[in-house]
Parts: sequence; C-alpha cells; structure tokens
Amino acid sequence: MLFAKPLAELIAELEKLPGVGPKSAQRLAYHLLRVPDHEASKLASSILNAKEKLRFCVRCQNISEQDECEICKDVRRDKTVVCVVGEPRDIVAIERINDYRGQYHVLHGLISPVDNIFPEQLRIRELLERFHHEPLEEVIVATNPTIEGDSTALYLAKLLKPVGLKVTRIAHGMPVGGELDYADSATLLSAIEYRREM
Amino acid sequence: MLFAKPLAELIAELEKLPGVGPKSAQRLAYHLLRVPDHEASKLASSILNAKEKLRFCVRCQNISEQDECEICKDVRRDKTVVCVVGEPRDIVAIERINDYRGQYHVLHGLISPVDNIFPEQLRIRELLERFHHEPLEEVIVATNPTIEGDSTALYLAKLLKPVGLKVTRIAHGMPVGGELDYADSATLLSAIEYRREM
Repeated sequence: MLFAKPLAELIAELEKLPGVGPKSAQRLAYHLLRVPDHEASKLASSILNAKEKLRFCVRCQNISEQDECEICKDVRRDKTVVCVVGEPRDIVAIERINDYRGQYHVLHGLISPVDNIFPEQLRIRELLERFHHEPLEEVIVATNPTIEGDSTALYLAKLLKPVGLKVTRIAHGMPVGGELDYADSATLLSAIEYRREM
Repeated sequence: MLFAKPLAELIAELEKLPGVGPKSAQRLAYHLLRVPDHEASKLASSILNAKEKLRFCVRCQNISEQDECEICKDVRRDKTVVCVVGEPRDIVAIERINDYRGQYHVLHGLISPVDNIFPEQLRIRELLERFHHEPLEEVIVATNPTIEGDSTALYLAKLLKPVGLKVTRIAHGMPVGGELDYADSATLLSAIEYRREM
C-alpha cells in the first residue's frame, strides 16, 4: 500500500472533481495535509455549507440562498425579457459585462442526444411555466455556440415562437480583438452569416 | 454581488488550493453544487478524516496513520541505508519502482534562501537524531535535481560525511527514452559528469 488509508481516500475523493487527475489529486491531498487544521476545516465546512444553504431559484433556476434569487427579486430589472442560459456560471459571465438588465432562465444543461440529454431533462417545463405568470415578450437564447447550444436554441425557438414570443439568439462571430487569419472557418462563417448593415 | 454568499465562500476556499485559479475554483464549486449531497459530504469528511488521522512518522517523518510508519516498521527492509527526500510524495515515486528496500527520511522542504527556507526549518535535526539509534551506513540524497535540491544535498554531505557516513547522490542525466537533441544543456552536462565506465 503506497498511501496511508485516509490519504488514499482523500486522493480518491479529490480525483472525482472535474479536471483533477491522479497526479493533481495527490498534489492537492498533500497540500491539505500540510496546511493548518483550521484552513482544511474551512474548506470542508464551506463545501457542506454551500450544499446546505444553496438551492435553485423557483423562478429562474439559478443558484440562490432564498427561494427566489436576487435577480428575480430585483424590481428594477426588465420583466419582459428573459435570457436563457445552459449553466448558472453563464449568468455570472453575462452579469459581469454590466449591461443586460432583464431576467434569466437556467436550463441546467443543453440538449445532447449522444450524452443522453434530452429536452425533458432540462428546465424547459419551468421556463414554459413562467409565461403564464410573467409579462415576457422576448427570449434571448444565450446557450453556447456549440452543436448542443445551437440545437437547444433551435428547439426553444420552435417551442416558443408559436406562443407568440420573440425568440432571439446571441450572435456568433469573430471575438473582439481576434484575427481573421487565426479564426476557424465555422466562426468565420458565422461572422459572415450574422453580418449587420453599417 | 455576483455569487450567493455560501458559493462565494466555497470559491474562495477552493482558490487557495495549489494550481486552482479563479476560473477552475468556480468550475469546481459549481460541480460540487451539482453532485448529490452525499458525494460532496464524502469529500468534506475525507478532508477532515485525513487531517485527523494522519501524522508524521516519529522516525522518518513520512505521513503515517501510526506513530511509526509501515516502512519504518517493516523488519525486512535494510536498516543501514536511508534515502533522504524533500516531500512525502517523493517516497511514493521511489516505492513505485519497487526496487529500493532501505529506509527513508522526509525533510519536508528543500533549502531555498530566496523563499526563506533554511536548514533549521527542515527535518534535518530529526535525521541526525536517527544516527544515534539506528545502524545507518549510507545516506542516499534523493532530493530533486534543482538548485534547491542540489544545495540541500551539498549541505547534508558537509554535515554527514564528517560523522563517518557514506553520502551518495542520485544521478542526474538523460531521462530514459529521451533524445539528446531535445535535452537542455544542464541535463546534458550532468549526464556527462555522471558518466560511468561500461
């Protein structure tokens, strides 16, 4: 046995984390053994605390400490627009630009038949439910510009347009500061497709 | 506030881990929120359990569940040779090759004046202590082939040779399977220096 049992167990648990291979799990475990007890306890308790305190907002499905999240409760935000994203972290990315002032809706995944993720597993039912209670007019589909994100966008458009909603998709194109020379052809193609009159 | 407080706290704790930047701390935190409660608790408890159960072997300073580690307790191992390493993980690397059958000693660091790490902070006193009780004859210094590892080796040689111990250093040279063409000159220089008659 190379590792003492509690160490082997810790390494095994760390290895389950995304992006953490056997080598970095070992590195993290040894680090945790080296730091003062109170520091390791703080990490452990912050995990337990986050799991205990956080839930999904009943409205937008974002991570929240209350039944309804801060963004949904904010009366200054535009109640007629909802931006649909795949993951809670996507909201953080959009909020960071400090420009969008509407609502959100988190699907918690994207349609991906190869990974066995179908529309029923996403929070689409909850999105439809919102139209009955909220004065929504436009749905901005801000899922990733990937096959999964695009299929999800297409699915939502087919579902929501008949209900009389305006469904828009965030633009795919050249990243600001990027060079045409280095862009992949799918991005370039999208940039031309999404072109706008000047 | 972009993140709910318990989430922000969890991200902050994760960011303290080595090699975990703000982005991967977020990724890990969201992952932990997504997994079942019992899985997150297992990680938290394995951290606490490892901190509680593990200590340093009184003899070799390796991580151990008992006062004396499995290797030190193993009577079939050669008690006359001790291999000095910087970190407990180095023992794992050497044990993996399944060839070395002597003792170990973990310094818990390497001499590095720029990082304010001097001999007094390393477990060198504990190493000297062992000579009084153990039938040691040879000390193999297996610290990393870096400036810190080499200075530590030099320091130990100066300290231990006068006591009548044979002090050896692991070879620095070409990694097996490497190509001369790609080797850095320090490695090549060492490979020539450490050359052996065939």
